[in-house]
Amino acid sequence: MSSTTDRTANVTVNPEAAIVDVERLENVLLGRWGDLRRAARVRVADPRFAKIEGLSMAEHRARIVAQVKTLAVEGDVLRAFPVELGGTEDDGGMLAGFEELVAADPSLQIAAGVQWGLFASAILHLGTAEHHRRLLPRAMSAEVFGAFAMTETGHGSDVASIGTTATYDPATEEFVIQTPFRAAWKDYLGNAAVNGTAAVLFAQLITGGVNHGVHAFYVPLRDPATMDFLPGIGGEDDGLKGGLNGLDNGRLHFDRVRIGRTNLLNRYGDVAVDGTYSSPITSPGRRFFTMLGTLVQGRVSLDGAAVNVSKLGLMIAITYGNQRRQFSGGSATQEVVLLDHAEHQRRLLPRLAQTYAAHFAHDTLLETFHDVFSGTTDTDEQREDLETLAAALKPTSTWHAIDTLQACREACGGAGFLSENRLASLRADLDVYATFEGDNTVLLQLVAKRLLADYAREFKDIDAGGVARYVANRAADAALHRTPLLRAVQTLADGGDVRRSAGQLREAETQRELLTGRVETMVAEVAAALRPATRSSREDAAALFNNHQHELIEAARAHADLILWQEFTVGLELIEDPGTRRVLTWVRDLYGLTVIERNLAWYLIHGRLSAGRARTVTSYIDRLLTRLRPHAQDLVNAFGYGAEHVRAPIASGAERARQDEAREYYRAQRESGEAPVLEKSLGRETGTVAGAPAVGVVRPASAESDPVDAESA
Amino acid sequence: MSSTTDRTANVTVNPEAAIVDVERLENVLLGRWGDLRRAARVRVADPRFAKIEGLSMAEHRARIVAQVKTLAVEGDVLRAFPVELGGTEDDGGMLAGFEELVAADPSLQIAAGVQWGLFASAILHLGTAEHHRRLLPRAMSAEVFGAFAMTETGHGSDVASIGTTATYDPATEEFVIQTPFRAAWKDYLGNAAVNGTAAVLFAQLITGGVNHGVHAFYVPLRDPATMDFLPGIGGEDDGLKGGLNGLDNGRLHFDRVRIGRTNLLNRYGDVAVDGTYSSPITSPGRRFFTMLGTLVQGRVSLDGAAVNVSKLGLMIAITYGNQRRQFSGGSATQEVVLLDHAEHQRRLLPRLAQTYAAHFAHDTLLETFHDVFSGTTDTDEQREDLETLAAALKPTSTWHAIDTLQACREACGGAGFLSENRLASLRADLDVYATFEGDNTVLLQLVAKRLLADYAREFKDIDAGGVARYVANRAADAALHRTPLLRAVQTLADGGDVRRSAGQLREAETQRELLTGRVETMVAEVAAALRPATRSSREDAAALFNNHQHELIEAARAHADLILWQEFTVGLELIEDPGTRRVLTWVRDLYGLTVIERNLAWYLIHGRLSAGRARTVTSYIDRLLTRLRPHAQDLVNAFGYGAEHVRAPIASGAERARQDEAREYYRAQRESGEAPVLEKSLGRETGTVAGAPAVGVVRPASAESDPVDAESA
Repeated sequence: MSSTTDRTANVTVNPEAAIVDVERLENVLLGRWGDLRRAARVRVADPRFAKIEGLSMAEHRARIVAQVKTLAVEGDVLRAFPVELGGTEDDGGMLAGFEELVAADPSLQIAAGVQWGLFASAILHLGTAEHHRRLLPRAMSAEVFGAFAMTETGHGSDVASIGTTATYDPATEEFVIQTPFRAAWKDYLGNAAVNGTAAVLFAQLITGGVNHGVHAFYVPLRDPATMDFLPGIGGEDDGLKGGLNGLDNGRLHFDRVRIGRTNLLNRYGDVAVDGTYSSPITSPGRRFFTMLGTLVQGRVSLDGAAVNVSKLGLMIAITYGNQRRQFSGGSATQEVVLLDHAEHQRRLLPRLAQTYAAHFAHDTLLETFHDVFSGTTDTDEQREDLETLAAALKPTSTWHAIDTLQACREACGGAGFLSENRLASLRADLDVYATFEGDNTVLLQLVAKRLLADYAREFKDIDAGGVARYVANRAADAALHRTPLLRAVQTLADGGDVRRSAGQLREAETQRELLTGRVETMVAEVAAALRPATRSSREDAAALFNNHQHELIEAARAHADLILWQEFTVGLELIEDPGTRRVLTWVRDLYGLTVIERNLAWYLIHGRLSAGRARTVTSYIDRLLTRLRPHAQDLVNAFGYGAEHVRAPIASGAERARQDEAREYYRAQRESGEAPVLEKSLGRETGTVAGAPAVGVVRPASAESDPVDAESA
Repeated sequence: MSSTTDRTANVTVNPEAAIVDVERLENVLLGRWGDLRRAARVRVADPRFAKIEGLSMAEHRARIVAQVKTLAVEGDVLRAFPVELGGTEDDGGMLAGFEELVAADPSLQIAAGVQWGLFASAILHLGTAEHHRRLLPRAMSAEVFGAFAMTETGHGSDVASIGTTATYDPATEEFVIQTPFRAAWKDYLGNAAVNGTAAVLFAQLITGGVNHGVHAFYVPLRDPATMDFLPGIGGEDDGLKGGLNGLDNGRLHFDRVRIGRTNLLNRYGDVAVDGTYSSPITSPGRRFFTMLGTLVQGRVSLDGAAVNVSKLGLMIAITYGNQRRQFSGGSATQEVVLLDHAEHQRRLLPRLAQTYAAHFAHDTLLETFHDVFSGTTDTDEQREDLETLAAALKPTSTWHAIDTLQACREACGGAGFLSENRLASLRADLDVYATFEGDNTVLLQLVAKRLLADYAREFKDIDAGGVARYVANRAADAALHRTPLLRAVQTLADGGDVRRSAGQLREAETQRELLTGRVETMVAEVAAALRPATRSSREDAAALFNNHQHELIEAARAHADLILWQEFTVGLELIEDPGTRRVLTWVRDLYGLTVIERNLAWYLIHGRLSAGRARTVTSYIDRLLTRLRPHAQDLVNAFGYGAEHVRAPIASGAERARQDEAREYYRAQRESGEAPVLEKSLGRETGTVAGAPAVGVVRPASAESDPVDAESA
């Protein structure tokens, strides 16, 4: 892949030297589906797929429709589908390709996700052979644009409570779809406002007076010839959104809409002609989770796309930060580029480190997904692990992307706010990734639930006396925590040479113990706090749970932090080049220590770090930033995005050219002897500048003059 | 003012009871310019001023032009201008009115700011009587739309280094304006792309071969008849931005453009006919800062507008959170509204508390500004205080607004992402507030510089021995900090009853000491670290400063946190109603403790809080959240925005109506006996739900089912 700039041809002279072999690292990062990713990146570099800023909503929607149709033909978007229908049954490969679409336009990624990842995929996973033959081909070819009609205005994350009903009528062998009240309108559905001619619709299945819970149905929506709604169906356009305006999100409602019995996607639940319900899964709860579990791929691909967008944002901001000079004071000799400012490094490099961590974690998620869905390792426990991993990573990476794009945008000042430089635009599009396909906060609660379940399982063989002892020990622990004491996990000597203790924090085992210990302790503490819930009323138990909701979510976050660190550490093993591995180990350390610094109060309160050692966390981070700064450009270049993907004028080299021109102008002026003399150099009294410190302090290089940035004003 | 919803008519029965008297609190919040704010709010409620989402950039720009012209006639926007020209010389009143414009459309607020706050105001403050007579009337009437041409592509915050030159030619008694290279193009200027017919332009003033530094010039840009650029002037449109697209930001460049000598705005520096330069301020540095100092009002009004937008966002999210029900499990009895979830409270209520703190801090800033600019208290020191205060508050409130809008948007899920509900739109518009009119990070460095200067001043009478003793004490301190010990500032007993220590944290004096002590210590530590800079080369000093840039910025943040807390505490004195004061005292405590919790590691490392007491910070915050939750609606209602300002369908009561309709449907169905029976209630084996904990744990009420929010998908 070509790069926009500065892809220095590093030759490793000394194998011990910290030098990034950009090309080899890029290969490692492309990973198991590297060839597919390369091919996808060539495709998305095609200007036909690039987002055009400033289109009207209608124009953007029309462009996305055309792009989806093109993808159906040229896009290799059918890999996950059955061989007999033209697919290759390569689940991971399909998602890898989808994740790359985000570089062209996040609306396109989501549109492809709706069409193939949700709509067609639901037919594949929730339907049976007859559905595959009858419905899949036109869904796969995008002849039928489909909506995924799950969410309702009144129920977003709580799918089990949706209001729409599908009541079986044995007289006609039909289901009757009904929207009982306004809150049960389907809402926020891509392809619903304009383009969809069919939907996979989720509704409460009722037959013989029994509600068997939420099931999926194939429901035609519009007459493809006229694009008018079919009888009994109505809807509304959700209109303009904060981003992703290439998607035609809309609302749908149904008034006694009849569909054939066989339009029930009946893999996990069926209704016979006479109305008898049957299911291979006896428990309604388990059945529900099994059906929804097939949809985990949405979260997997959002995780991957979010990591890719973080990479793009950092590519733009770090390239610009390496070229842009500020506060030069008119003297060519004192100019420094933005990235030489310590605060600029603080803003960008820890986010770069987390992006690397998120990359490796996503790789593991994608492989896990592939192995489960391809059947290689498809047990209940593995499905559960996959879902928990996705529920932990999707919130982490989507919030990280939003945060990183914002930091990048601010680090580029007014230039970062121009749509042409993409940061604000990507930020706007990624925003909703935090709440769709599982609200981040709700997903983290699912993770916490799983952590509690695992914890409870560990203790299941302990008798009542054992639990009592455990609780007593917990109380003793709490007393110890009052004044920080050394604990088993903290084996390092206190005090002494700051450099030595920083060196110890650098050790992977120390980081692992600190990160692991935190998760374990948080889970144990919450579990202990929730213990009375087993003996209390449902209301009291709910109240108790609510009182600890914040700690549950924090425990899940800590778990996700640990996963990222672990997967990064495992990923380091893939790096064969010693120079590259050395640099990436610093990046891993920066990630680990940033997480520890963020939670430093917790480590101090729990006696896991002494005050003295806690101070060294920040100073070691500072040292890592200094060490990594020269490698920043290599580290973003290794993401493998070329100018055709970055497409941001500020990261094109134009800034460097401007700065060089300005410096050359001043140099020539000085040499010509025609430069005006500065008044202050004429020997007049210099005076005191308001606010300038009088003693013992120099003015900061980056606040040399009063800062007034009147951009956009 | 009318309110959108829920403005309960609270009658204070028991004066000790914690009840918010919404109307009286609203009056307190409206403050010194309450009548003007009320009038401004009536104006901005006029649909002529409301932002229309989804306009093209050209349409939005045209709408803003029309609105600015309307404001010029009806908007009471000239209060700060001289009486003889139709103003009332009421600086604070003018800004108060401008701050209210943001509720209509942030583009309008900034457009008004460019026209009257920057362009016309620069003529007023940097020009002299002749300029006022000749140029002000048409700037004030908006007959001339003006650009404020300070920023250049190559220099944003570093105004002193701009490249544009204005060279005096005594032969023709003209200045020649020249753009020497591409990086010196003026950039990001509102009114430059399309609408501006003149500019106040900042350039290096050169006469007789001497560069006297940056001065302001009045430069005609376009022929008003044709709107073509005048000879020698060219430019570009900055195009679409991440927000604020009602502003026509653009670039300008100048090739030997000649303007008359008297177009120099000559209050602080003049050139005689023969080219002799003169200035009432001998020091070029001081002169520069004096000129820029007149522009502080931009930061003051951005601070106020940012606080107002935070209020609007919270009004929307808290109103919705009080109506929206989720995870009801289909049973009407167990439904809770979002705001009853502890995590939802954690997301919104601390931000509400900071918004109150920021409100009171802004009130003080605005009064300080007014007193300085009206001449009541206009000394050098007071100007310096004003500038430092503005430099501390503008970053704090603009970042807070961005963060708050994002939290509000996520708290409203997919509905929060729809443009009609304004949160995403306001978020996009406010984004650039963090980097224009002084980049936030650069402003905080100015604050830190001032803190260091004050600190140095305190120590100026100490002889060398004193400094040595001071340094020795600092070293002793550092040793003590290794293992947290009680210090003078920490007078509270350790351990013991958690409730009692939480009670102590509630005391204002404890909070004040903790917040004050942190600022003092941080400044002292940075000052000590920077001390060697006085004896080192300029390069070494700059490197040393760079090494401590992050701590400098953190010290400035801590200072801003303290200001907000102090001004909130002073503001409490204005609340006469005891019930309201009680609630607001909790809000103040929540703000103070949230700041302390955010910096808990610092307090632990520095021995200001023991581990035991540190734990109580979070538990006391939890108690405050529970206590404040019933008052949340009153607290946002007291901001005084009516439905005509909020204009968000989700905060209109529609959500409550939908939820009521759904509950009524289920109730009627149950009573009719026609409700379908749930399969799981038929006595079949319930089975184990994947991920459900087995022991000692209830499932969280808010994760009752697998969360899949397919909105926008």
